[in-house]
Amino acid sequence: MPLDYSAYDQFKISFPAEWVALVETNRPKSLNSYNLKTWEQFGQIFIQMSDDSDIRCIVFGGEGRAFCSGLDIKEMGSFGADDDDMEAARKAIKFRRFITDFQDNIKQPHLCRKPIIAVCHGISFGLALDMISGMDIRIASKDVKFSIKEADIGLAADMGTLQRLPKVVNNLGWIKELAYTARIFGAEEAFTQGLVTHVVEDKAAGMKKALEMAVLISEKSPVAVQGSKETINYAIDHTIEDGLAQIANFNTYAVAGDTIEAAMSMAMKKKPTYEKL
Amino acid sequence: MPLDYSAYDQFKISFPAEWVALVETNRPKSLNSYNLKTWEQFGQIFIQMSDDSDIRCIVFGGEGRAFCSGLDIKEMGSFGADDDDMEAARKAIKFRRFITDFQDNIKQPHLCRKPIIAVCHGISFGLALDMISGMDIRIASKDVKFSIKEADIGLAADMGTLQRLPKVVNNLGWIKELAYTARIFGAEEAFTQGLVTHVVEDKAAGMKKALEMAVLISEKSPVAVQGSKETINYAIDHTIEDGLAQIANFNTYAVAGDTIEAAMSMAMKKKPTYEKL
Amino acid sequence: MPLDYSAYDQFKISFPAEWVALVETNRPKSLNSYNLKTWEQFGQIFIQMSDDSDIRCIVFGGEGRAFCSGLDIKEMGSFGADDDDMEAARKAIKFRRFITDFQDNIKQPHLCRKPIIAVCHGISFGLALDMISGMDIRIASKDVKFSIKEADIGLAADMGTLQRLPKVVNNLGWIKELAYTARIFGAEEAFTQGLVTHVVEDKAAGMKKALEMAVLISEKSPVAVQGSKETINYAIDHTIEDGLAQIANFNTYAVAGDTIEAAMSMAMKKKPTYEKL
Amino acid sequence: MPLDYSAYDQFKISFPAEWVALVETNRPKSLNSYNLKTWEQFGQIFIQMSDDSDIRCIVFGGEGRAFCSGLDIKEMGSFGADDDDMEAARKAIKFRRFITDFQDNIKQPHLCRKPIIAVCHGISFGLALDMISGMDIRIASKDVKFSIKEADIGLAADMGTLQRLPKVVNNLGWIKELAYTARIFGAEEAFTQGLVTHVVEDKAAGMKKALEMAVLISEKSPVAVQGSKETINYAIDHTIEDGLAQIANFNTYAVAGDTIEAAMSMAMKKKPTYEKL
Amino acid sequence: MPLDYSAYDQFKISFPAEWVALVETNRPKSLNSYNLKTWEQFGQIFIQMSDDSDIRCIVFGGEGRAFCSGLDIKEMGSFGADDDDMEAARKAIKFRRFITDFQDNIKQPHLCRKPIIAVCHGISFGLALDMISGMDIRIASKDVKFSIKEADIGLAADMGTLQRLPKVVNNLGWIKELAYTARIFGAEEAFTQGLVTHVVEDKAAGMKKALEMAVLISEKSPVAVQGSKETINYAIDHTIEDGLAQIANFNTYAVAGDTIEAAMSMAMKKKPTYEKL
Amino acid sequence: MPLDYSAYDQFKISFPAEWVALVETNRPKSLNSYNLKTWEQFGQIFIQMSDDSDIRCIVFGGEGRAFCSGLDIKEMGSFGADDDDMEAARKAIKFRRFITDFQDNIKQPHLCRKPIIAVCHGISFGLALDMISGMDIRIASKDVKFSIKEADIGLAADMGTLQRLPKVVNNLGWIKELAYTARIFGAEEAFTQGLVTHVVEDKAAGMKKALEMAVLISEKSPVAVQGSKETINYAIDHTIEDGLAQIANFNTYAVAGDTIEAAMSMAMKKKPTYEKL
Repeated sequence: MPLDYSAYDQFKISFPAEWVALVETNRPKSLNSYNLKTWEQFGQIFIQMSDDSDIRCIVFGGEGRAFCSGLDIKEMGSFGADDDDMEAARKAIKFRRFITDFQDNIKQPHLCRKPIIAVCHGISFGLALDMISGMDIRIASKDVKFSIKEADIGLAADMGTLQRLPKVVNNLGWIKELAYTARIFGAEEAFTQGLVTHVVEDKAAGMKKALEMAVLISEKSPVAVQGSKETINYAIDHTIEDGLAQIANFNTYAVAGDTIEAAMSMAMKKKPTYEKL
Repeated sequence: MPLDYSAYDQFKISFPAEWVALVETNRPKSLNSYNLKTWEQFGQIFIQMSDDSDIRCIVFGGEGRAFCSGLDIKEMGSFGADDDDMEAARKAIKFRRFITDFQDNIKQPHLCRKPIIAVCHGISFGLALDMISGMDIRIASKDVKFSIKEADIGLAADMGTLQRLPKVVNNLGWIKELAYTARIFGAEEAFTQGLVTHVVEDKAAGMKKALEMAVLISEKSPVAVQGSKETINYAIDHTIEDGLAQIANFNTYAVAGDTIEAAMSMAMKKKPTYEKL
Repeated sequence: MPLDYSAYDQFKISFPAEWVALVETNRPKSLNSYNLKTWEQFGQIFIQMSDDSDIRCIVFGGEGRAFCSGLDIKEMGSFGADDDDMEAARKAIKFRRFITDFQDNIKQPHLCRKPIIAVCHGISFGLALDMISGMDIRIASKDVKFSIKEADIGLAADMGTLQRLPKVVNNLGWIKELAYTARIFGAEEAFTQGLVTHVVEDKAAGMKKALEMAVLISEKSPVAVQGSKETINYAIDHTIEDGLAQIANFNTYAVAGDTIEAAMSMAMKKKPTYEKL
Repeated sequence: MPLDYSAYDQFKISFPAEWVALVETNRPKSLNSYNLKTWEQFGQIFIQMSDDSDIRCIVFGGEGRAFCSGLDIKEMGSFGADDDDMEAARKAIKFRRFITDFQDNIKQPHLCRKPIIAVCHGISFGLALDMISGMDIRIASKDVKFSIKEADIGLAADMGTLQRLPKVVNNLGWIKELAYTARIFGAEEAFTQGLVTHVVEDKAAGMKKALEMAVLISEKSPVAVQGSKETINYAIDHTIEDGLAQIANFNTYAVAGDTIEAAMSMAMKKKPTYEKL
Repeated sequence: MPLDYSAYDQFKISFPAEWVALVETNRPKSLNSYNLKTWEQFGQIFIQMSDDSDIRCIVFGGEGRAFCSGLDIKEMGSFGADDDDMEAARKAIKFRRFITDFQDNIKQPHLCRKPIIAVCHGISFGLALDMISGMDIRIASKDVKFSIKEADIGLAADMGTLQRLPKVVNNLGWIKELAYTARIFGAEEAFTQGLVTHVVEDKAAGMKKALEMAVLISEKSPVAVQGSKETINYAIDHTIEDGLAQIANFNTYAVAGDTIEAAMSMAMKKKPTYEKL
Repeated sequence: MPLDYSAYDQFKISFPAEWVALVETNRPKSLNSYNLKTWEQFGQIFIQMSDDSDIRCIVFGGEGRAFCSGLDIKEMGSFGADDDDMEAARKAIKFRRFITDFQDNIKQPHLCRKPIIAVCHGISFGLALDMISGMDIRIASKDVKFSIKEADIGLAADMGTLQRLPKVVNNLGWIKELAYTARIFGAEEAFTQGLVTHVVEDKAAGMKKALEMAVLISEKSPVAVQGSKETINYAIDHTIEDGLAQIANFNTYAVAGDTIEAAMSMAMKKKPTYEKL
């Protein structure tokens, strides 16, 4: 049985299938905007699930009409309100700390050992893209409205979108156009450019597709799946030679029981059963 | 009012909208081939515009039937003609200096702080691809003929095409096929593979599209836009962790007046007005 | 005349055109599965062809119904059978050596100075993707069945697929989905995502297409072609600045006779003839 | 007033001067060997002090006859005792997690924003070197006995010694000799090779020297001091160009009040007073 | 005959021997402090000498009692005085531009193709260390007083000291102590730690030593000397494998006439005569 | 019993103690200059010894009056003698191949899994430094004469000296002075700057010292020793974070039997006995 996740009041967390967790931002009234409390819980959930051996795959979505409408603007507005008398460098360093703490939460899906499938629908602005660019697989429903919205609020995106997208999809011109114009784009364009790998009719269909995929992944060897995530994430930031050395080291100890279980199950034409990880 | 650009006789430079510069190679008789003088002016224009606070976005095109037919071959032919008696290592080092000086000009669009939109039409061979692979956004008209032409003149492309394309578009096999065969390809293929993000009917339509996009970009916060360019260009050559640290440092001082202006304008439902940068 | 390749009994090697080698895995009974002997010959062939100045381009395919069905599972099964009494660290280090030796063979197409075109048909599972992700250009026939099959045998792919694919095609979500699910995909999907650049009717059409391309490449300057391969492979693992310095150094000595031959042939409207390399 | 550190029972923590913390391992009976509890507290102390704005410099030493005798061997012996039935890959991954958690604690001095001065005396074996190689400044008393002891317990040092020493002292041959032989070396040799920067008569003299230095550092601008630590640590893992860009970004907001305070104090010939950081 | 350097009024420039230039900061009244004009000329001189084929080695010193007392503080004080009304982000970006322009000048000795020998005497504070850490060889007279003075004016050194010293000398603890304390240190300590390679009685002796060395260097093959500088500077920021590839590429064209001249001169027991470079 | 090394006629190879190999260049008449045959055997010996489980440590020296007088100049003179008619780029690429093949041999000591101790005496010029900079530990007798001799034959050192020394000793100014001047330096200077770690009276004393050290190393766990070499060599070319990840992966499988053997032997106060590796 998975660990206890009842303390996370900003999210709806359920377990729709064995090994599969479903995490949904649960602030529908604000179109799932994120404030300090939301993004701290966001980070904590993925830290906890990373080590929860009863979870093998995570589906991430948003309750209500929107996937995520971005930052709760009021949050930014009130930041530093009490610091007016603070010396300028200290005020700046405090603000940098705010940014890096925020980043440390938003990057948890990338660090989480379990694969994460995002299902995007409706408004998916700003922070929405920072969050999903650090997830593994992205599905969109036809009504999705994506936008690298940050330019419209006078800043360059700093929670991962601009840092990760050039390594996630690779049409640099397209990324730049979106970053410079904050233009809204839909599911088809997101699919054509590789931001999402599946377009579905609506949110319900997206959840169905995601859960099927999550179940399929959960039936595979968790050593293979988690090892693949670690290896691919390593590969995008290292040379090919370094990548080959990393997986050689990893497989030296990771190729073990699951390979035997897989081979024997194949021979016996039964479904393999893998131990928890 | 923008600075004075009248000295650049190889180019036609105009300002079709507030904040927007239009730069066109103006050697139509040679199909906009580039000689030493042309590429030195090319570099200088982008260095100057990078600091011209009346320019927020640049559109780049070519006068006449072609966007750019590549290197002026005669230029290469005459290089080193007087050096026959020079000791071999010195002759080689002088030639390397010629290549790196040439590169230093062709890489200016990448270094220019302002976004650059290329509009390609007709012949766009060799150096044309080196130039546009360092620009931000690429639009093509249906009559465009692209080619990594260097293999046909017996050399590997050394002005940026082979260095940048693997980080700009996503299909290494396609880049290699083009580099090895010098095969001509058109607008649709360029769009499918992500080299261009928009295909339009003809050059006029391309200019129209580019100018609309340039105006849209110019209305956004220049801090956000220029910060995004700096950040994305940094991201393609650094790890994700380094990228997150870079933008955290940048936004520590860059998130300031424009964010307030954006928020207030949104609240007041008016267009924001950003100071020059 | 090319060197002697008659010792490689696991492959069928022929020379269908001047400068062009055709290498086909020749274990049709096992659907071209690879055992120790097969992959050692695989590596050796590309090492030898890299220096064979009568070969300018290589086409790689598979005899029979499948391109390659992956690892010969029995091979893995018997590995380390005699090492039961070996101290654990030594046994592990011996196994790591097995993996890195295997990698050293599978990476030879990447290191080979000559371009390699893969023609995939039928079953192309597991090791098949490791092998072709290190080749230059990929063509698929409509009947191809690709799969990153490793998850199904309980391990993360360690022969190049996970290390290279993020630099070869760039839809990271798609790569991850395939790695986590081991899902089979076909030619159209491979084309859409950029894994292959051409889809053809069947294997025969693929060979025809590949040979035409190989002949075309062989007619180009080998200095330009091999220099382009070296340069693009360097670019994917280095910064743009390092890439520009690398090609400047290379072209300092590589821009020589072939450029003159190309220019003169163009002037004289004849086909250029390039010396061996 | 500094935060509360009374919960750390493995250490003796005091504040011998304004802004200065003194942290001493307090397990003299075991010659300050480290077990799980000790190293977890070790990491936590530096995390807490990093953000404690009443601390500007930290001195680190050991109670009793030894600075640190290394790992508590019993700890390692009991690790994994209950995992005998665990599948091999899972057991290995659990052990890797143990190593990386351990590393995450031992690396905190490097990440701590405040400078740390180590005072070494007596036995300083194994983990002692891992710990001090991540601190900023090292002082040794004449009776110190250093040893990269890991080879004597059958493993390669994995808590920082081998990773950091090549970037901390300058003599790779010396590091290798020590790592391969586990040879004990003294204060003079450590000084000659740059591992320590001061040799003093005994532990008391070392503490006196360290506290004087700590007071001196605490009187400097904390923006300057913490900025220097961040910058130097960045420099050892990045190119010079990246280093110059990092400090330019940092100083853009960090050069502020302290520079004015320093200049005015200099003009008025008084000691500058810097705000907390 | 060397080019004309008479326009640089902040420096005294002479040619004490064939192939050798002597550059001395000539602001003795301010103890050779640097203002905007001084550092811009500093950068320009090394740019010009880099391409002056009559110069093979450069000696750098300071006129009067001090080598360099650092930044002209008034310069910093007046920076930004007119920008009080400027929006905060723009003011910051303007300041960052000031820093990077300054860096671009101070880094020229590193980029200059000719070796540079610094002779330090008397006060050598702050910027002095930034400048010499980018030069090739350092000599100090006994009266030298070095200090990483920046901490005393409330900032982290940003012109190269902290970025380069970890790659120039390697006692990281010593560098950190100096950066955190701004402590003054003398010639012997600088020699022990490897910052200078020769200690001499006084400035005159330093100049004599430097000129002898410069003459010796100038008699060697300039291809060998300049190639060595390029190669060593490349090596400190790249892996060993990348370094080996770089020099292999360089020597492919650089091993030519000078090797023959050297071999023949050796055989004929005469001094070799190398062509200009 | 070690493998058979009798085929290497350019070297004298013996086994003066259990687990210890002694390799001496055996061309005393030419002062141990290296020609093509010598350096190919040099590379092969270390490749073979790397896998020879009866060898745990290697001592490397030179027969006769000199350690190594560098390249056999005649070798270079005759290179390319038959290529006069070859097209320039092909001739250059052939020469580059010659350089990289040469490098591939000289870098084998760095890649060899076993530690290597160099004992230098008498003339140790040019290639001598390339060779020993890739070895692990360096001992010199008082009569040694070192020189980065390459500048005297008109070229920049390309076999490792300039690439490795900045990572082996770290006084960059000293390395540059030696590279630019080709100045001869002795044992004391080499010791002061960290190039050698021990200075002894004469070659015999050096051999004695080296053999004692080799025996000491051979008595340690080969997993610990070879793991340390791999880890330190990895560290010099990677970030600290990458280094920590590498050793965590390695120790996950390498901490096994030898740790138990070490602990039990310590408890039983006997010498541990480690299995072959």
